[in-house]
Amino acid sequence: MKAVIISIGDELVIGQVINTNASFLSKSLFSIGVSVDRVVTVPDDESTIIKEIHSAFKTSDVVVVTGGLGPTHDDITIHCLAKFFKSRLVLNHDVLRNVKSLYRRRKIKMPETNIRQAMLPEAAEILRNKVGTAPGLLLRKNGKILVSMPGVPHEMVYITNKHLLPLLKKEVKSGRTLKEKTLHTIGISESMLSKRIGNIDDIIKSTKKAVVKLAFLPANFEVRLRVTVDAVNPKTADRELKLAVKKLISRAGRFIYSYSEEQLEEVTGKLLRERKLKLSAAESCTGGLVSSKITNVSGSSEYFLDGIITYTNEAKIKFLGVRKDTLKKYGAVSEQTAMEMAEGARKSLGADIGISTTGIAGPTGATKTKPVGLVWIGYSDKDITFAKEFIFTKDRLRNKEVMAKMALEVLRRKLLAMSN
Amino acid sequence: MKAVIISIGDELVIGQVINTNASFLSKSLFSIGVSVDRVVTVPDDESTIIKEIHSAFKTSDVVVVTGGLGPTHDDITIHCLAKFFKSRLVLNHDVLRNVKSLYRRRKIKMPETNIRQAMLPEAAEILRNKVGTAPGLLLRKNGKILVSMPGVPHEMVYITNKHLLPLLKKEVKSGRTLKEKTLHTIGISESMLSKRIGNIDDIIKSTKKAVVKLAFLPANFEVRLRVTVDAVNPKTADRELKLAVKKLISRAGRFIYSYSEEQLEEVTGKLLRERKLKLSAAESCTGGLVSSKITNVSGSSEYFLDGIITYTNEAKIKFLGVRKDTLKKYGAVSEQTAMEMAEGARKSLGADIGISTTGIAGPTGATKTKPVGLVWIGYSDKDITFAKEFIFTKDRLRNKEVMAKMALEVLRRKLLAMSN
Repeated sequence: MKAVIISIGDELVIGQVINTNASFLSKSLFSIGVSVDRVVTVPDDESTIIKEIHSAFKTSDVVVVTGGLGPTHDDITIHCLAKFFKSRLVLNHDVLRNVKSLYRRRKIKMPETNIRQAMLPEAAEILRNKVGTAPGLLLRKNGKILVSMPGVPHEMVYITNKHLLPLLKKEVKSGRTLKEKTLHTIGISESMLSKRIGNIDDIIKSTKKAVVKLAFLPANFEVRLRVTVDAVNPKTADRELKLAVKKLISRAGRFIYSYSEEQLEEVTGKLLRERKLKLSAAESCTGGLVSSKITNVSGSSEYFLDGIITYTNEAKIKFLGVRKDTLKKYGAVSEQTAMEMAEGARKSLGADIGISTTGIAGPTGATKTKPVGLVWIGYSDKDITFAKEFIFTKDRLRNKEVMAKMALEVLRRKLLAMSN
Repeated sequence: MKAVIISIGDELVIGQVINTNASFLSKSLFSIGVSVDRVVTVPDDESTIIKEIHSAFKTSDVVVVTGGLGPTHDDITIHCLAKFFKSRLVLNHDVLRNVKSLYRRRKIKMPETNIRQAMLPEAAEILRNKVGTAPGLLLRKNGKILVSMPGVPHEMVYITNKHLLPLLKKEVKSGRTLKEKTLHTIGISESMLSKRIGNIDDIIKSTKKAVVKLAFLPANFEVRLRVTVDAVNPKTADRELKLAVKKLISRAGRFIYSYSEEQLEEVTGKLLRERKLKLSAAESCTGGLVSSKITNVSGSSEYFLDGIITYTNEAKIKFLGVRKDTLKKYGAVSEQTAMEMAEGARKSLGADIGISTTGIAGPTGATKTKPVGLVWIGYSDKDITFAKEFIFTKDRLRNKEVMAKMALEVLRRKLLAMSN
């Protein structure tokens, strides 16, 4: 089964909005064995939209359209669908009720313009949208289907998971099985990882029964290893995937922090929970990002006590008990300060572990001996206190991101080494 | 001048990586008057890549290729370019030197595999990449050009700004002028904003001299208003753009926080700096995200003193001086606690302003009277202390994001109301 994704919106064509919807959809469709042939991005223009729907129906079984369902004048998708499917617009009372109740929950009166979102093509089957005002629509033509969804990402996600995927799963009758597994590594560069893994001729493969591919995907100071298998049947696919993954694990070892979409903060959180340890964080250069990542995980209050963001030296002294002498002698960005910060975070509220970051996020603040991108990451528990040095980039936001990740990674490695 | 963007990578086709490069490129090209006709995403497959380059050269003056320049086996773009342009691969010593120096800076030894990245088509002009190991390449054919860049986003950004745009600016000779202006609003829904702005017939326009468009772009609890003008000359474009923007400002008023790509935290930071005020933050449900946003801005240490993340009641009492009685009587998520937190943040290190967040990020933690998505945002200065209530969504990460933004917005509104 083949699909085309049509993303509608001037904002996409001129690059103002990133097309995250297309990648989410590609991924979701791939996961159920539907291959995306093409992603087309078009402006909010009636004739272009209708033309693209037309040509998509020629090559594909499924056409997924996102965007242009909002309540304002530039949202014309419904209008185009009504034209293409030759179906008149009628008021849908269920949809209107849903819109009204969403406004009620937030204690805001519904504006009249939202009524427009309940005027829908008569031929369309409604895919209910519980998280937003515009519903998804399902339309059929010559045994092929078109699903139209709002462009607002979380609404598109909701409708995809709730309606589109279950619908397609029923209809997929592909002969081949596609499987994929991604191993997430951190703290090692793409080429170092490639060197470590060595010759991959025993991992990749291309026979009639199975095609096994391996990709190195670097992004945000992580490198993902993705194995994809295209096999004659599910059993072969599973076997080949397992085999390849096993080889990669034996070679990439401790650099792999996750075998699923689990984030570093989730993995680290689980280790803390398993070991029944409480964490506190003391942050300077990362400015709250370490704590924010940790608290992105639901249930993190079980192991995260508090975080102290000490941008000033005064705060380092007052809240964390860093010694004036240490700051004077070694400076705020130093091994000694990082260690005292971590210790201070641990002791301030009786946590088991304290972690800390102190560095130069940039672009300013460098000295002769301390370049932009330098960070000391501190760790302290009842047995040991230490700090590690890293040098990253010259970009402030990238530095904050990677420094926060490395703080979690230092913590993860230490937790792994402890007995459970 | 027309362009096609070819994004290379299995990871894109199966949706594992979001194609942020394409949107950045579209935006950059649009800004200098080059219109992107098409964005094509293709897998790491030699014949497909060559076919797409071929067809792109037919319809466009500029072909921009990203991805597939890494040091591992699945990076085959160079190989495809060598084939398409019939140019043999030779070792480029300048490029090799750059790779070596990047490794040196980070105090890591260069792996042998990186030498591959210095083997480049003889016919290519090198576009130097100071921030990564793979250089950009410029190749010409029949008066048309192809630029190939790494897929790693910040490297692609560097080469685009440093090489691609200056190069194209010289060659652009379009008859029309494209201009665009985006107003960023926050704290108002798309339909409420549309209602507030009212009839837009005096804003949009379509004559021979100028086409003026207006788009409402909702995302992450903000709504952007984008005006685009396509006019016969720069003067007309400027005049029409100014006119439309002026009308929007008079109608959307205080909801607009930025007229450029300036983020809310930058705008708020400027207001603090102008008023010479120091800020401290006390966060519960946002877990450090407010502070992290504030410290994303370079120079924020001038007005940001410290942040206290109090996940536990103990921390609220110890670090912020919230009264036990208050927590007992009203609960941690309440107007009273938010106010005491803000006051505590302000007083703890002698800041001029304290802001606070306390709420239920979810998905768990709701009570009968306190739903997931509820947040109290506190504000305190020497004259006034107050807290405001908002109810957002049921999703943890979206709640953290919007709660942190609204904390900044509450602060921005209050700062605006003060005399400078």
